[in-house]
Amino acid sequence: MERHFDHELAALKEELLRMASLAEQSVAEMLKALTQRDDALARKVETDDDMIDQLQIEIDDRCIKLLALRQPTAKDLRFITMSMKISTDLERIGDEAVNIAESVEAINKEPVLKPLVDIPRMAEIARSMIRDSLHAFIFGTVEEAQQVIQRDDQVDNLNYQLQRELTSFMIEDPQTITRCLNLMRVAHNLERIADHATNIAEEIIYLYEARDIRHHHEQGS
Amino acid sequence: MERHFDHELAALKEELLRMASLAEQSVAEMLKALTQRDDALARKVETDDDMIDQLQIEIDDRCIKLLALRQPTAKDLRFITMSMKISTDLERIGDEAVNIAESVEAINKEPVLKPLVDIPRMAEIARSMIRDSLHAFIFGTVEEAQQVIQRDDQVDNLNYQLQRELTSFMIEDPQTITRCLNLMRVAHNLERIADHATNIAEEIIYLYEARDIRHHHEQGS
Repeated sequence: MERHFDHELAALKEELLRMASLAEQSVAEMLKALTQRDDALARKVETDDDMIDQLQIEIDDRCIKLLALRQPTAKDLRFITMSMKISTDLERIGDEAVNIAESVEAINKEPVLKPLVDIPRMAEIARSMIRDSLHAFIFGTVEEAQQVIQRDDQVDNLNYQLQRELTSFMIEDPQTITRCLNLMRVAHNLERIADHATNIAEEIIYLYEARDIRHHHEQGS
Repeated sequence: MERHFDHELAALKEELLRMASLAEQSVAEMLKALTQRDDALARKVETDDDMIDQLQIEIDDRCIKLLALRQPTAKDLRFITMSMKISTDLERIGDEAVNIAESVEAINKEPVLKPLVDIPRMAEIARSMIRDSLHAFIFGTVEEAQQVIQRDDQVDNLNYQLQRELTSFMIEDPQTITRCLNLMRVAHNLERIADHATNIAEEIIYLYEARDIRHHHEQGS
């Protein structure tokens, strides 16, 4: 019986990893859709989101069944409840990627404003945050999860800088307003993706250290 | 033993209600801070958020303990797991209210742009969505939760209109750009608060009907 439960937990872990990898892929694809002005890819991100949504429902079902049938305690119990929280954050990362894809389609209709530097950097950091938080989840590497949380500040700073820069652009040349607004939205959505990855990292630290660090790092960093 | 468990569930319900009422109050206060240009009230929203954060940690702890000690099944199990999801959404509503409060402080530093109409309306609908979703949660009134979900479209439409209107303002008079951007952020954050209330309503429908309506109403409406 015990060994069967281990298999069930492994299957849950695998499903979460699949969901995370789809979410990460959506971020990569939306960046490519933006830098290569590829509308078809932007639309692909929108349809791929259905798979992410479906996985969330499956993971929640799986968790509820495991709780009911196995009545786990201690670490297994935390693992399963945290899986439900992690799936929620991954699902919302998918939603943010869809929001970005919609802005990208609008951006691609207009002339290029300027070479993109900050947005690709933000997207790369956000992707690494999703990837590393899930790696920390499988291997129980709490330090890795802590690094994810620290990286969130970099994304926040890049977003802040970019919002300021785009505001100046708009003031100097009002013809750029619509384009600037769309780029601002993309940056803002990326910043939220990083926030969700940070939430996941916090869940993982809670899972492995059984202490709640949420609402503490904010003061610390 | 069974009766003691009922008391524990009642205590959990009460704690969630307290958290929801604080979240709703934050939305009301930030609106007042905006319309009455009251910086002190904006700062109060920021400090009140600590209480909301603390409640989330307490509710999660309470849920994990109930799952471990009582090993509930069926409806009680769903109630407890959904409570953890609802507390996450309430916590993020608190975060959005803090984001709004920060924008309000910036807005209050500049001359009034125009009389506010859409933002107070959005805030009122968002508040009613938080209130009604929690009411549906206590009384198991699934129809009420469904109405919350429908109201989300009104908030989305108001946000869309306002974003367009503010964009026109900016193009006509670039001197208004900073003010318009701050109002856009407020509207965007309100729209997200309504999204979180919608998530809560979806959790409640799942709780009481044991079916998953997430990712379905999007196609329907």
